[in-house]
Amino acid sequence: MSDPCIICVAITGSVPTKADNPAVPVTVEEQIESVHESFEAGATIAHCHVRDDEGRPTSDPERFARLKEGIEKHCPGMIIQFSTGGRSGAGKARGGMLPLRPDMASLSVGSNNFPTRVYENPPDLVDWLAAEMIRHDVKPEIEAFDLSHIFQAAAMVEDGRLKRPLHVQFVMGVKNAMPVDREVFDFYVRTLRRLMPDATWCGAGIGRHQRTLNEWSIAAGGHTRT
Amino acid sequence: MSDPCIICVAITGSVPTKADNPAVPVTVEEQIESVHESFEAGATIAHCHVRDDEGRPTSDPERFARLKEGIEKHCPGMIIQFSTGGRSGAGKARGGMLPLRPDMASLSVGSNNFPTRVYENPPDLVDWLAAEMIRHDVKPEIEAFDLSHIFQAAAMVEDGRLKRPLHVQFVMGVKNAMPVDREVFDFYVRTLRRLMPDATWCGAGIGRHQRTLNEWSIAAGGHTRT
Ligand SMILES: [Zn+2]
Ligand SMILES: [Zn+2]
Ligand SMILES: [Zn+2]
Ligand SMILES: [Zn+2]
Repeated sequence: MSDPCIICVAITGSVPTKADNPAVPVTVEEQIESVHESFEAGATIAHCHVRDDEGRPTSDPERFARLKEGIEKHCPGMIIQFSTGGRSGAGKARGGMLPLRPDMASLSVGSNNFPTRVYENPPDLVDWLAAEMIRHDVKPEIEAFDLSHIFQAAAMVEDGRLKRPLHVQFVMGVKNAMPVDREVFDFYVRTLRRLMPDATWCGAGIGRHQRTLNEWSIAAGGHTRT
Repeated sequence: MSDPCIICVAITGSVPTKADNPAVPVTVEEQIESVHESFEAGATIAHCHVRDDEGRPTSDPERFARLKEGIEKHCPGMIIQFSTGGRSGAGKARGGMLPLRPDMASLSVGSNNFPTRVYENPPDLVDWLAAEMIRHDVKPEIEAFDLSHIFQAAAMVEDGRLKRPLHVQFVMGVKNAMPVDREVFDFYVRTLRRLMPDATWCGAGIGRHQRTLNEWSIAAGGHTRT
């Protein structure tokens, strides 16, 4: 409750392309510009994906390096969080940019369904990504797409695969995963406090649910993401 | 609460082999014998997997047909439930035995992690299995390995992909999926009642957790599985 509220900015999730929405920043230069605008508007965390020349999601470390450099230059003090999400690569490629030592990186610790496919996070890949984050001193943001993911994160802290205190993001509103539901949200918060009292958390709603989750998160003492 | 308590018998889940435990029934004849013993002991539902000649899990419709025939002959009135779980086949092969019209079949509506791999239930396969069950008049048992699976089942009832009233099984104690946790169990029951008041349910604990889940289930008005 006494934590300052952290406002994250999610620039360019990995799905939309220029064809869907011409305002979406796609090149590294456009992304830096977009993060800079959010930074001036008060955002403190930049959640980053990168794209290749065709606008497709990629985990290319070279692009992540340029993005990090630009944000560090234009947004001094901003927390940089890289995505290791599965949309932008397969297997260990998803963690190939962790040696760049961003402040944070997203980490999914379980699997679930997405709108048209399985979001695959096999146990051995999860363990490898977690170990890489410890090795390069990167703080994970646990992406909890379902309730068991909170338990899995707690188990990983318990046996040393993750370092406390954790930061957990509750993701709601993804089709075929967890819908936006107030009672589940409250149970998530309660469960996290029970299992990991020292953890921080934020709620993320997808698309039109963003505002709802921000309101719930602020009221419940979590952080928000815009 | 006024429902009669249904005792299921889970013969030979798909993992153990003779090498692990010589008492595990493996051939169709051994399985029929094992189901018959449970039937005489009062079990009313037989949850069935089958194996090939090497003892490996399979979805072979011919073996399912022989098993069904044997149970019908030796255990008149027993409810026969076929597994469509992912351990015994890939893709649509998992539903190849549904035209045999067992009384019930298991149905996973989401994906999650298992001890060493991803338990993959892609959205289009889930929809196809659900449609096959409607087509062949097979009642699904929804296998809820995580909280979002209950919401997904409710959404599928809502838009007609599944028929009410549903029967849902809460599965706990699988490594890397949902652990055995009393507060989660209570929240599962509460959520199911809120989303689908007409649904029936049972709790299943894996291995040494079987007894715990049975106790919780009986006390909370669910069904049990032995
Ligand atoms: Zn992301
Ligand atoms: Zn956040
Ligand atoms: Zn089974
Ligand atoms: Zn049952």
